[in-house]
Amino acid sequence: MSLRRENVFVHTSIRTSDLDKSIDFYTRLLGLKILSRRKILQNNAEIAFLRDPEGKGATLELTFYQEQKRFVQADYEDRLFDHLGFEVRDMETTIAAMRNERVTITDEPYSLGQGGSVIAFIEDPDGTLVELIERKQ
Amino acid sequence: MSLRRENVFVHTSIRTSDLDKSIDFYTRLLGLKILSRRKILQNNAEIAFLRDPEGKGATLELTFYQEQKRFVQADYEDRLFDHLGFEVRDMETTIAAMRNERVTITDEPYSLGQGGSVIAFIEDPDGTLVELIERKQ
Repeated sequence: MSLRRENVFVHTSIRTSDLDKSIDFYTRLLGLKILSRRKILQNNAEIAFLRDPEGKGATLELTFYQEQKRFVQADYEDRLFDHLGFEVRDMETTIAAMRNERVTITDEPYSLGQGGSVIAFIEDPDGTLVELIERKQ
Repeated sequence: MSLRRENVFVHTSIRTSDLDKSIDFYTRLLGLKILSRRKILQNNAEIAFLRDPEGKGATLELTFYQEQKRFVQADYEDRLFDHLGFEVRDMETTIAAMRNERVTITDEPYSLGQGGSVIAFIEDPDGTLVELIERKQ
């Protein structure tokens, strides 16, 4: 059906326990820019939309629910959501910056087979898994 | 630092208990197209990357781990991952098609305030939450 061909996967939404801290992580450390930020009074929430400055990639929605006390993920083996993927220019510099900021690095950089991409995994401030993929020059 | 300005949020990865079923959901019902599909022997996994045919939106990675038996999400109130957001052209037609396919509709369409977008929430075959947002004409 033709209508469905006009559907677009526009954003991914994750929760945060501290909106400022998450915005700092995704902007200062990962280079996204805030598109908008606003309070949703009926949900006692505050949301922010972020994207890379050139608008090449996807939009990330960060949601802070004032009343949320626990932020729970299933054990890694049993999870449904896996990760957010970020392409970075230089893995070594990126990982050094993350280490310097005491970001949790769950998988140090490794190569996906011969001639494959170099990837690594880190965690955002609440434990959401983020894959870093070194862009091929 | 200038390097960070070249980072791009390129994809979101979720797990699936049945790759064919999930691909059917995201292609036939939501209009994405398969970019690639391959087995990752060292992880006993199979992955597929999907995107809208015109490449306007984000890329969705579906991962099937042969050995994964349980697919667990925290209670809605305690979750860290929230949802994937899809812009659709016509909410009424889309929801009717979902209902016809017995897709779980967790939130029937409603309007975000006066003049706001019409949105709804559904679940993919494994329970990952998907927001539908009617595109403003």
